Amino acid sequence: MTALIIGGSGFVGRNLARRLESQGHDVVVLDRNADQTGSFKGRYIQGDAQDSEFLKTVLAELRPSDLYHLAANSDISAGVADASLDFGDTLMTTLAIRAAVVEVPADRLIFASSSAIFGISDQALGEESDQLPAPVNWYGKAKLASEYVLESLSAKLPTLPILIVRFPNVVGPLATHGVVFDFIRKLTADPRRLDVLGDGNQTKPYVHVAELIDGIQFFLGKLEAGVTRVNIGPVDLVDVKGIVAEVCATLNVDPEVTYQDSPFGWPGDVPRYEFNTSKMRREGFAIDTTSRAAVRRAAEDLHTEWSNK
Amino acid sequence: MTALIIGGSGFVGRNLARRLESQGHDVVVLDRNADQTGSFKGRYIQGDAQDSEFLKTVLAELRPSDLYHLAANSDISAGVADASLDFGDTLMTTLAIRAAVVEVPADRLIFASSSAIFGISDQALGEESDQLPAPVNWYGKAKLASEYVLESLSAKLPTLPILIVRFPNVVGPLATHGVVFDFIRKLTADPRRLDVLGDGNQTKPYVHVAELIDGIQFFLGKLEAGVTRVNIGPVDLVDVKGIVAEVCATLNVDPEVTYQDSPFGWPGDVPRYEFNTSKMRREGFAIDTTSRAAVRRAAEDLHTEWSNK
Repeated sequence: MTALIIGGSGFVGRNLARRLESQGHDVVVLDRNADQTGSFKGRYIQGDAQDSEFLKTVLAELRPSDLYHLAANSDISAGVADASLDFGDTLMTTLAIRAAVVEVPADRLIFASSSAIFGISDQALGEESDQLPAPVNWYGKAKLASEYVLESLSAKLPTLPILIVRFPNVVGPLATHGVVFDFIRKLTADPRRLDVLGDGNQTKPYVHVAELIDGIQFFLGKLEAGVTRVNIGPVDLVDVKGIVAEVCATLNVDPEVTYQDSPFGWPGDVPRYEFNTSKMRREGFAIDTTSRAAVRRAAEDLHTEWSNK
Repeated sequence: MTALIIGGSGFVGRNLARRLESQGHDVVVLDRNADQTGSFKGRYIQGDAQDSEFLKTVLAELRPSDLYHLAANSDISAGVADASLDFGDTLMTTLAIRAAVVEVPADRLIFASSSAIFGISDQALGEESDQLPAPVNWYGKAKLASEYVLESLSAKLPTLPILIVRFPNVVGPLATHGVVFDFIRKLTADPRRLDVLGDGNQTKPYVHVAELIDGIQFFLGKLEAGVTRVNIGPVDLVDVKGIVAEVCATLNVDPEVTYQDSPFGWPGDVPRYEFNTSKMRREGFAIDTTSRAAVRRAAEDLHTEWSNK
């Protein structure tokens, strides 16, 4: 079976591609940019995921069993400054994929949605709530609109199984962005100081990408026709000060750490959110690692990567 | 029966409100801004159509039979410069209305979509095509994504009749923007000269708002459960030079007219498009006025309005 990962050169896509390859699947990555890390052995197709005609051609050739839609703008604060990034890379890719799949169906479609659809707090909102989530940045809004676009696809193709997975903050090897990546990049450049964005009290759930992919594969294993939405996340949260401690311990450095006054790390930041994962647990999947331990493991992953460069 | 017009202070909304009032309906307008023209006698509710909780409260109070969603950014070129205008005012209003209607249903939902979803040419695309239309501006992209969001609503509420009407260029009284409005504004200020945006060869279909509303009411009269999409438009096109001629004749002026080199009037302009209205005609509705005659009638409407100010 062939798995096609659209947006497969990004952080989660790289890890997913390697996992699927290691499991013996035929993996094809379609992305605007090639993955420069070099460890992916499968086929790479350069192209624009907003171009539905191009996607149709690719689908017709590959006839993938699993189609992963991971294409998105991953720089949330850049999207706050320029909404066209999320409107284009995150939402219009979904419309193009919808149009291509209507004409050339895949066996299953998997979409990377996000806890960002919920905004500041989602405590009341489970996966089947009709209440409108309240995303506070264009990234979350584009992910939410994408979910509805895929529901409209399901109305058109009711036998197609569609898995919509909402990711929390994800950390791990082969990262391209994010707080752990950012701290390791800064501390590798200058281990004596660390400038932190925000006041350090931002508190969120973090999952290691390996466990996220475990979760995706768990829900794929029981996927049925129609849309299945699931929030995948850990049982707890960790604050940025805790992340600083884990990264510094991993790198064995003791920098002067400076914080800002603002509780927001950057425009569009959500300083604190909880993530309702009761459905995930009820259905039989658990994340065994705490947020802090996930961060520690990711710091070790990235430290090893950077040390080998 | 109560008709609620969300975005009812805009150009089409104003005309629709007056039509429905004249037909004896109870009409409520919800808009961020009040209609300053003063001729609407019904109830006005000031509010943000992106706020689903607010919309729920309004729906619960009014229990409208017909809910019109006309909220949108109408300045296409401003949206090209700042995608957040269309992302917010055009698309996120649709998500908010979807969320409100799921909890407090209306009897029917009518959405103002646009020929802008098709971009440069739609010749091949009828209303039931699965091919992805190729909008060239965020306005058209937000309208297209909104259509899919409403299809997802229909999957949730299959008995709700939803009418999606794609408008071409619309002209007529109470205008707030558009080429005829723009020319009359300029020529009223200085009848000796007229600076035209673009080379004057932009060629598009124009419908008078009165006939557009005739069409909406025709399709409402036969509306069934589920989503009905229809393109409403005239049989032909008119170019900007023809519009200049009609406006000048109406105002009885003979200005020096200057054109630009570019075929595009403004960023995001579609210099020429045809509009597939075969479904509309097949279903028994016709626009009897040519595009040029619609422009002439609108010029007379607006000239009278401006003369009475």
